[in-house]
Amino acid sequence: MKVVLIGSGNVATHMALAFNAAGHTILQIWSATFEHALTLAERVDSMAIGSLSELTEEAELIVIAVNDDAIEQVVANLEGSNALVVHTSGATSLSSLARMKHYGVLYPLQTFSKARAIDFSLVPLCIEGSDESSFATLKTIAESLSTAVYRIDSAKRKILHVAAAFACNFVNQLYALSDDLLLKNEMDFGLLRPLILETAEKIQVIAPLEAQTGPALRRDEKTLAAHLDLLEGQPELQNIYQTLSDSIKKSHQ
Amino acid sequence: MKVVLIGSGNVATHMALAFNAAGHTILQIWSATFEHALTLAERVDSMAIGSLSELTEEAELIVIAVNDDAIEQVVANLEGSNALVVHTSGATSLSSLARMKHYGVLYPLQTFSKARAIDFSLVPLCIEGSDESSFATLKTIAESLSTAVYRIDSAKRKILHVAAAFACNFVNQLYALSDDLLLKNEMDFGLLRPLILETAEKIQVIAPLEAQTGPALRRDEKTLAAHLDLLEGQPELQNIYQTLSDSIKKSHQ
Repeated sequence: MKVVLIGSGNVATHMALAFNAAGHTILQIWSATFEHALTLAERVDSMAIGSLSELTEEAELIVIAVNDDAIEQVVANLEGSNALVVHTSGATSLSSLARMKHYGVLYPLQTFSKARAIDFSLVPLCIEGSDESSFATLKTIAESLSTAVYRIDSAKRKILHVAAAFACNFVNQLYALSDDLLLKNEMDFGLLRPLILETAEKIQVIAPLEAQTGPALRRDEKTLAAHLDLLEGQPELQNIYQTLSDSIKKSHQ
Repeated sequence: MKVVLIGSGNVATHMALAFNAAGHTILQIWSATFEHALTLAERVDSMAIGSLSELTEEAELIVIAVNDDAIEQVVANLEGSNALVVHTSGATSLSSLARMKHYGVLYPLQTFSKARAIDFSLVPLCIEGSDESSFATLKTIAESLSTAVYRIDSAKRKILHVAAAFACNFVNQLYALSDDLLLKNEMDFGLLRPLILETAEKIQVIAPLEAQTGPALRRDEKTLAAHLDLLEGQPELQNIYQTLSDSIKKSHQ
């Protein structure tokens, strides 16, 4: 497939690496910041372009991997294209691309950081197409990138995106808060790393409801009160502690 | 070492397996529920006892792995023992064992479920002793069980226990809430498992603050508002969503 990539952020970077590794040709990469496009283009043997007006008509697939807010403006610049145009956003409807002839969504359900390599073949790809032909093409492309391809419509994908905020963004924030708590008490976050890994590995095989442990589950009010005492002077942590302990109790009534 | 184990819950079970695997002899296991002691004793070639009055004087190490609330009563039954007596609680002070002659704390910083095997050699063991001789003995024992042994005093251990609630108990609750959200929308939790694993694996090598991704980090207010809309009618989820999004923004000012 001849691909054009719009974007140079975390998602765009890992998408570019995956397309490249799967043997597709990335003809061009555009980014709002030309230097970012250049850096990424070098990594995947592509060419950076500074303006969307330079887009080649040879593109069979255009992948829009920019911030959600920027999708609309990109689309306005693609008018008339015969390529299959897809965006990679979890929170944006398929219909945002309705001005295109053939379009779809290619949403990778994963957290990407530029500095960290990832096995893209395990990344769940949630796909949707404007028509059966576009869908079939996108399915073939997706299956060349990953072994985990799912047909998910816009309404469900948005729910999935919210669920991912809970299971990834908020989880990582809890890691960050515990890191900070240890640092303030002259302890190293490394102490918690095996626990964090086991917590995530456990739910690969056990349902989270069954995997739950800790004082809130046991309704150990003495320990819960002691923990809140230890967090005195840190109202934000106390609030999160109380909120999530209440939630655990509610889930295990 | 000749060991007596008090308890038969998740921690006691994994402790018993670890002591057994390291070549120690578990002379006796006591549990408030005799059947539980029997089941565990069978797994580690030990003997169940139904009353603490049956405790053998041969014990060199007595490990108290019961609910925090039950430690005091167990200790009252051990008076006069010459063994090194340790508890495994993160939230309980060393001084709770002050009626013993030789005592300490052996706190495994991990989440244990009976149904799930674990590589105990990687479990961080936080130890503390009533005196240098007890500490040295406990250190040798701990190092026979795990490669990750740390000297941590009671005050720091309590903080560590709170941090573990954030990094494990609350994290798992977020997994459970996302599982429930997907279920209600006819999607499978399996979709999120690669994301959850990557989120935990990423912070094995990157600091959580650097690993953060998502709409709250990007201050993408449109997506944050859309997510809250999607959670309409679920005030508990909305509250957690708002609280943790605010926390992310605060951490990344």
